[in-house]
Amino acid sequence: MIRLSLYIYRNPILHFVSSPISTSLSLLTLSLQFEVQMSFAKKEYEFLKEIGLGPHNLGCYASGVWRGNGPVITSINPSNNQVWLICLSDCKISFLKFEFDCCKFAIAEVTEASTEDYEEGMKACFEAAKTWMQIPAPKRGEIVRQIGDALRAKLQQLGRLVSLEMGKILAEGIGEVQEIIDMCDFAVGLSRQLNGSIIPSERPNHMMLEMWNPLGIVGVITAFNFPCAVLGWNACLALVCGDCVVWKGAPTTPLITIAMTKIVAGVLEKNNLPGAIFTSFCGGAEIGQAIAKDTRIPLVSFTGSSKVGLMVQKTVNERFGKCLLELSGNNAIIVMDDADIQLAARSVLFAAVGTAGQRCTTCRRLLLHESIYQRVLDQLLEVYKQVKIGDPLLSGTLLGPLHTRAARENFEKGIEIIKSQALAVSKNGGKILTGGSAIESEGNFVQPTIVEISPNADVVKEELFAPVLYVMKFQTLKEAIEINNSVPQGLSSSMFTHKPEVIFKWIG
Amino acid sequence: MIRLSLYIYRNPILHFVSSPISTSLSLLTLSLQFEVQMSFAKKEYEFLKEIGLGPHNLGCYASGVWRGNGPVITSINPSNNQVWLICLSDCKISFLKFEFDCCKFAIAEVTEASTEDYEEGMKACFEAAKTWMQIPAPKRGEIVRQIGDALRAKLQQLGRLVSLEMGKILAEGIGEVQEIIDMCDFAVGLSRQLNGSIIPSERPNHMMLEMWNPLGIVGVITAFNFPCAVLGWNACLALVCGDCVVWKGAPTTPLITIAMTKIVAGVLEKNNLPGAIFTSFCGGAEIGQAIAKDTRIPLVSFTGSSKVGLMVQKTVNERFGKCLLELSGNNAIIVMDDADIQLAARSVLFAAVGTAGQRCTTCRRLLLHESIYQRVLDQLLEVYKQVKIGDPLLSGTLLGPLHTRAARENFEKGIEIIKSQALAVSKNGGKILTGGSAIESEGNFVQPTIVEISPNADVVKEELFAPVLYVMKFQTLKEAIEINNSVPQGLSSSMFTHKPEVIFKWIG
Amino acid sequence: MIRLSLYIYRNPILHFVSSPISTSLSLLTLSLQFEVQMSFAKKEYEFLKEIGLGPHNLGCYASGVWRGNGPVITSINPSNNQVWLICLSDCKISFLKFEFDCCKFAIAEVTEASTEDYEEGMKACFEAAKTWMQIPAPKRGEIVRQIGDALRAKLQQLGRLVSLEMGKILAEGIGEVQEIIDMCDFAVGLSRQLNGSIIPSERPNHMMLEMWNPLGIVGVITAFNFPCAVLGWNACLALVCGDCVVWKGAPTTPLITIAMTKIVAGVLEKNNLPGAIFTSFCGGAEIGQAIAKDTRIPLVSFTGSSKVGLMVQKTVNERFGKCLLELSGNNAIIVMDDADIQLAARSVLFAAVGTAGQRCTTCRRLLLHESIYQRVLDQLLEVYKQVKIGDPLLSGTLLGPLHTRAARENFEKGIEIIKSQALAVSKNGGKILTGGSAIESEGNFVQPTIVEISPNADVVKEELFAPVLYVMKFQTLKEAIEINNSVPQGLSSSMFTHKPEVIFKWIG
Amino acid sequence: MIRLSLYIYRNPILHFVSSPISTSLSLLTLSLQFEVQMSFAKKEYEFLKEIGLGPHNLGCYASGVWRGNGPVITSINPSNNQVWLICLSDCKISFLKFEFDCCKFAIAEVTEASTEDYEEGMKACFEAAKTWMQIPAPKRGEIVRQIGDALRAKLQQLGRLVSLEMGKILAEGIGEVQEIIDMCDFAVGLSRQLNGSIIPSERPNHMMLEMWNPLGIVGVITAFNFPCAVLGWNACLALVCGDCVVWKGAPTTPLITIAMTKIVAGVLEKNNLPGAIFTSFCGGAEIGQAIAKDTRIPLVSFTGSSKVGLMVQKTVNERFGKCLLELSGNNAIIVMDDADIQLAARSVLFAAVGTAGQRCTTCRRLLLHESIYQRVLDQLLEVYKQVKIGDPLLSGTLLGPLHTRAARENFEKGIEIIKSQALAVSKNGGKILTGGSAIESEGNFVQPTIVEISPNADVVKEELFAPVLYVMKFQTLKEAIEINNSVPQGLSSSMFTHKPEVIFKWIG
Repeated sequence: MIRLSLYIYRNPILHFVSSPISTSLSLLTLSLQFEVQMSFAKKEYEFLKEIGLGPHNLGCYASGVWRGNGPVITSINPSNNQVWLICLSDCKISFLKFEFDCCKFAIAEVTEASTEDYEEGMKACFEAAKTWMQIPAPKRGEIVRQIGDALRAKLQQLGRLVSLEMGKILAEGIGEVQEIIDMCDFAVGLSRQLNGSIIPSERPNHMMLEMWNPLGIVGVITAFNFPCAVLGWNACLALVCGDCVVWKGAPTTPLITIAMTKIVAGVLEKNNLPGAIFTSFCGGAEIGQAIAKDTRIPLVSFTGSSKVGLMVQKTVNERFGKCLLELSGNNAIIVMDDADIQLAARSVLFAAVGTAGQRCTTCRRLLLHESIYQRVLDQLLEVYKQVKIGDPLLSGTLLGPLHTRAARENFEKGIEIIKSQALAVSKNGGKILTGGSAIESEGNFVQPTIVEISPNADVVKEELFAPVLYVMKFQTLKEAIEINNSVPQGLSSSMFTHKPEVIFKWIG
Repeated sequence: MIRLSLYIYRNPILHFVSSPISTSLSLLTLSLQFEVQMSFAKKEYEFLKEIGLGPHNLGCYASGVWRGNGPVITSINPSNNQVWLICLSDCKISFLKFEFDCCKFAIAEVTEASTEDYEEGMKACFEAAKTWMQIPAPKRGEIVRQIGDALRAKLQQLGRLVSLEMGKILAEGIGEVQEIIDMCDFAVGLSRQLNGSIIPSERPNHMMLEMWNPLGIVGVITAFNFPCAVLGWNACLALVCGDCVVWKGAPTTPLITIAMTKIVAGVLEKNNLPGAIFTSFCGGAEIGQAIAKDTRIPLVSFTGSSKVGLMVQKTVNERFGKCLLELSGNNAIIVMDDADIQLAARSVLFAAVGTAGQRCTTCRRLLLHESIYQRVLDQLLEVYKQVKIGDPLLSGTLLGPLHTRAARENFEKGIEIIKSQALAVSKNGGKILTGGSAIESEGNFVQPTIVEISPNADVVKEELFAPVLYVMKFQTLKEAIEINNSVPQGLSSSMFTHKPEVIFKWIG
Repeated sequence: MIRLSLYIYRNPILHFVSSPISTSLSLLTLSLQFEVQMSFAKKEYEFLKEIGLGPHNLGCYASGVWRGNGPVITSINPSNNQVWLICLSDCKISFLKFEFDCCKFAIAEVTEASTEDYEEGMKACFEAAKTWMQIPAPKRGEIVRQIGDALRAKLQQLGRLVSLEMGKILAEGIGEVQEIIDMCDFAVGLSRQLNGSIIPSERPNHMMLEMWNPLGIVGVITAFNFPCAVLGWNACLALVCGDCVVWKGAPTTPLITIAMTKIVAGVLEKNNLPGAIFTSFCGGAEIGQAIAKDTRIPLVSFTGSSKVGLMVQKTVNERFGKCLLELSGNNAIIVMDDADIQLAARSVLFAAVGTAGQRCTTCRRLLLHESIYQRVLDQLLEVYKQVKIGDPLLSGTLLGPLHTRAARENFEKGIEIIKSQALAVSKNGGKILTGGSAIESEGNFVQPTIVEISPNADVVKEELFAPVLYVMKFQTLKEAIEINNSVPQGLSSSMFTHKPEVIFKWIG
Repeated sequence: MIRLSLYIYRNPILHFVSSPISTSLSLLTLSLQFEVQMSFAKKEYEFLKEIGLGPHNLGCYASGVWRGNGPVITSINPSNNQVWLICLSDCKISFLKFEFDCCKFAIAEVTEASTEDYEEGMKACFEAAKTWMQIPAPKRGEIVRQIGDALRAKLQQLGRLVSLEMGKILAEGIGEVQEIIDMCDFAVGLSRQLNGSIIPSERPNHMMLEMWNPLGIVGVITAFNFPCAVLGWNACLALVCGDCVVWKGAPTTPLITIAMTKIVAGVLEKNNLPGAIFTSFCGGAEIGQAIAKDTRIPLVSFTGSSKVGLMVQKTVNERFGKCLLELSGNNAIIVMDDADIQLAARSVLFAAVGTAGQRCTTCRRLLLHESIYQRVLDQLLEVYKQVKIGDPLLSGTLLGPLHTRAARENFEKGIEIIKSQALAVSKNGGKILTGGSAIESEGNFVQPTIVEISPNADVVKEELFAPVLYVMKFQTLKEAIEINNSVPQGLSSSMFTHKPEVIFKWIG
């Protein structure tokens, strides 16, 4: 059940290292088994045991059983990108010593779901749906209440894991888990409010009854940037409504997927309910596509890029299924001439740099009234200077790494494009005011970046998933709103002003 | 059925005049009958025929029939208080000529409901309630829609009558009728939304059905200042909800009560529905008490003074009935230091002087920030000077008469008290800045009045139902809110400011 | 502007007839113009003038102007399929007489929208949207109220036109228009209920405002079977919500599209509002596709076949637009052993034969409990015998023609398939019990048909848009629900029973 | 602080016993103090320590402090009415032994609130209200969540206390506490749903904001029969809405009042909130009147008799306060001819005998269709025979004692009246079929009683708060509904039938 993993994930060069010794190690495996399964490669990962994780984990909770027959993947800390995985704690085997001393370690290993795992899980989930929908809504609410309490008991550890595996700072990690707890409380209340209607009709002695019946199963596909909160939004409501949940977390945050699932599974099992009510798969595009195609799943909630979202929607619609999509954003903050500039600067910092610019609601465009343009910019450059970049788990850090090496490369490519377009629109400004480089390190750190640019530059219409902020100038509210609405990705916008007439115009 | 009324209502001195000729006139009555019933004493009242009124009217619509066996009262125009009533148009009787030339004429005569009329009406209404509640809600909505259309067709005439009989200016009279039309439209929409609930319970295979059943009959007692709008608020909703309506209008606005009832009755009759669904009584305290005591009326809506309201509530509660009360107000406008002073001054004028200060929502207290105190006052005194006082039906008039001679006397008494208390608190200001007198005329006109006074003066805690505005100074928002809340009669308050933080603090 | 149309639409054989005389007639055109435009070919179509239609009509109301630069099509009466169109009333031209005597006439001619018309209309609509969304919701409600009243005034004529052009019986035609009137009333009420929310947040001194803002433009594509009611559902709500409407009616019911649009246009014009608020196109797939692709239309409501619906949805989604789809149905009625059999038989007749089986909610499958199987069937065959087939405008007619010649052919093809499959499943029954043939006539009449068949037959899973009813037997409620749910097209289902436990199980 | 109470409350005869020895015992008091405060007179009361109760208790939680300067009262077990109270556990004082051996012990002693305690508490509560309403609603919800959890942790003990002090059986006692826990869960959900509205008006650029602001303080006066659930209904909602709570429990259930308050107080204190947010008084009519009169309490919720309720309402209304009243009931169950008789009989038993007939929703009248009259009666007499009467804490007991000796006497008086009236209406039946006597014992036990009587008998219109059921016969549904509605106290009614048409007629 437990394997001694000495090779490196995704690194073909080192495979020859593991091959020769793998045979000999297979003998060792048995005798080392107990120690191995209790130990992480680094002491700082030991807290993961408290939320049911080990150095190697099965990535699939199907029909109430943990399993995994798909590819084995490694969960990597984005602060260091270390990919070796070794699962010995107090290893006494001397001939391995020389290697370990120089090793760099990933967090843990996960075996993803295979297509067979998926099918097995869905079959059980489909059966469990018949049970779950028969349970009275307030009783379903009680289960969700217990899930909330179980999360409360592990809030610190789960938050720490979010921070560790995803890369956001600890306060954000804990905040994300708290969000699920709040959703649980909210959903418990809803579980006694799922009222149908009795509608008097225009015909005498006739009335219509309208009731909310469960759909059966809700599929939830989530992204790396909010690796568990989005599950919470969907699952809490689905569960009180009488729907089973099938969850596929992001492929790069499998430990969070597993840890969250263990919390839910624990509550279901304690209440003697089928575990298949909550079915969870670590996996990639293949599992995602299976969910999109699966006629047993009438509603699929997808969070991720617009491109993939459209594909999922198309697949789901073709089988007359329904979609909930949370896709890209290209959000603006408008600062009016009468704004509180200190407040605005501080808010922009958090909105543009928080989660390293990897929120769908990250502020990507800052629209400043010409009369306060320079003052806000000066303030902003000042506060940007003070941003502490580094290990997201350390207190005081404000900016952690981007989630992956690829994201960092994408940032660098984006900066190149910005530079080229900045030239082209130079008349309107167009230059990097601060930041603009990746930081030399093992991890995926980049500098928080401010770019002065014209609203017409092509690059401004794109979503660069990194802490890059475009600053622009406007003269009138009308112009600001036009710039705000000139990108294809609408999601959120903000405005700083004291004038009620502007506020109410703004909200419609 | 039609009497030739040559005597004066409530004026014992002139009764001897009518007595000797009444015998001889009784012979004339028959021959004059046709002309009499078609004619008003003054040409300017002729438009009342278009809404079903004549010089003499039966004041009670009970069991679908117009009747009236109670006292005969006269509807008086508050602009001239003329109380004679003569019902001849092209009267050819020469020996009466000399008298008529010098006569002053009331609007029309109404025979109020007797106790027997009430009982007859309620019996029929109680029966009609069984029919009405069986009619599907959307069909009831269709009746209310037709009422709205019938009101639309007579909007000008009804508005004119409100202005004539109550004394408010024409725009307000028409606005009041329009309010009922809007209520009709709103209620029609509601007639398809009276949904009950199907509530899933915590027990398996168990659910709860919750439905809205009609109460049966809703009693509506309205006041002179909004002689028909308040009926509209209550009756439109009651009717779509399946309740019959029993209405007692104010004793001094009987013509409005009758005209409104004719509109409703016309629609009911056209649809072959029992007229008793809408039962209407002109009458005084006796009928009001009968409604309060009547166990056939589970809900009584009362609009009027706090004193009478409390009595009605007590009587209704003793029989386990329910009450809706619309009572006194002592409303403040707060003007902050950043307010638009022109806008504020204009708004205060309308709020304090509109309907001659006889709204429950009339602004009675103006709280000015010390920094703009004098500027607002100056503006206000300026606009007060321009207020045109006079016949409310004339275009351009902004301030009509008070509703009754008694109200005018009450105003004068109030001014005396203010003067005495103004002296007592003289340290804090306390003087009449403008107005303060009744206007010499046949009607009940008074000057719009502004009084500078301390918030602690006793008179400020009372509701003087006239266009008298108390002005006070404050230094902080906190202080303003305290003054605002320092009177027992809370109802409405307003604030002028541009600061959103103040706005949102203000609304809670 | 008015052309004398002597040729036949879609009939190539007769084109040679029209060709030789068209030249000579072109000279006549001018002199006959006045008479021509006022006259229909048949006297029974004269009533169409009362709702603004003539023998030739422009099919496009764009930017508040009637236009049409697309193909000219002919509106054909499905009761006779007559396709000639001649536009002379008291024609004095003798040399044409001999021809006209033997002529068969279509209803009227319509010039559809060209691509340019579409673009022109959309530009104006996009501008009008800015005006319309600024108008307060209750004022928009007032416009919808006036639309309702305008429809009320023409209820009989519009209902007659629906019956004439679509083919449903007159009661259904009038009922369809009444549905829009009801929607108007409902929407007027909603226009004062479009409330946003003020949501207290968990942060002190913080709250969230949530408001409903108009989308801008709502596209509505409707189908022939409810050629105006579906417009009503969508447009009434869209208009009060502040959205402009772009409507494409079915290509075979252009006169209804035009007549409905004239009602709405009349109200807009009377209120001095841009006509472009309601933009309407007669046209085919090309216009439909233009709507689906148009990024100016954030929401498209489509009613029609599942196949086309999916295509529309795909196109709309690709541009991140939203869809409302009303597609196919394959609806069942379940009759339990304790049902009132007379009531059930009568209801099944209306559900299966009404609108000649061309409703999305038509009952296509009848599931009978084995214990009452024969009794219900016997009753049903009895009532089917009495169904009066014929001109839908004649009183007493219960079954009009199918909408087109193609639909009739489709019916005949369907019957062939049923027969072949009935054989294949003969073990489970499988035979035509009544009907099964088209009726020899000029029109598209077919016999109402009952087929005894196994629930497993492939043909049962398809939607045949004609009055064909499949009858099946079941033993238990569970089995009945399984059969009910065994087709891909869920929409509506019904059950006849007296048992509350079955009722509540049924609704969930 | 702790007194050695050797005298008997309310028993003057024994006062001479306590007087002579009280002097000598005062010396003992100090040395015994520790033992005394930890001990109850009976071992079976020891569990009360787990919920913070002792043999003597201060009955007032005011300004976050436990106090009590009013009369000292004794909480008596209604199963034995023992009124001695002695507070020694392992008492070693031999000269007292001889007395204690023969003693009968009450549960515990409570010092009620004095008028000064009330005033002190209200002052603090009024101040606390300003703090509490400033706390964001979701944070208030979190406090209520913690209260729910604290109740969960003590569910068994609290339920046991309810059973012990009130007299209802243990399952009902626990159920009552569970109800508060459910209310907490529900209220937590509501704490994020207290939304205001943004209402678009008919004026351009104008909208209305409507928000829910806290009232300040809600007064809750509860009755003995649901000594804590009713507090839960009111307090959970009041607290999330931002209102402080002032509670006066029933004078005869002071321990429940104190124990519940300790739970709430513990949560408030743990969260560093002012205890005065929840202010609680043990006391009688004097405290009740103080609440009714107190202008600081805008809303008073009262549960109890109609007579007292009317008085409270009158007092509250006079000061323009609002009331929530839960008063008497005289509830009927109708059994139709098609009912499931076993189910009906079992349900009637629970409805009529549960809580010893001391619920406002107790079934007092059983209306049987003549065709099943005898069969239901036979069944009912059979199940009544099996009712186990006795100590409500014992498993298997179905009927505990009435709450007080006075209630038992009232039962006996009621039976006398029934007998006299039964004679008077003998033509229509009218006799005691089972029960009809109090049970000889120390406690307040009475026999569950069934009386056959005419619906016209006067006694049937009264609410006798005891397990007495009147049985009547009817022929038609109409007649049954008339009988159902023929009593002044409407509250709840039920019906047993299988016919949906009857069900829906029944609910309206």
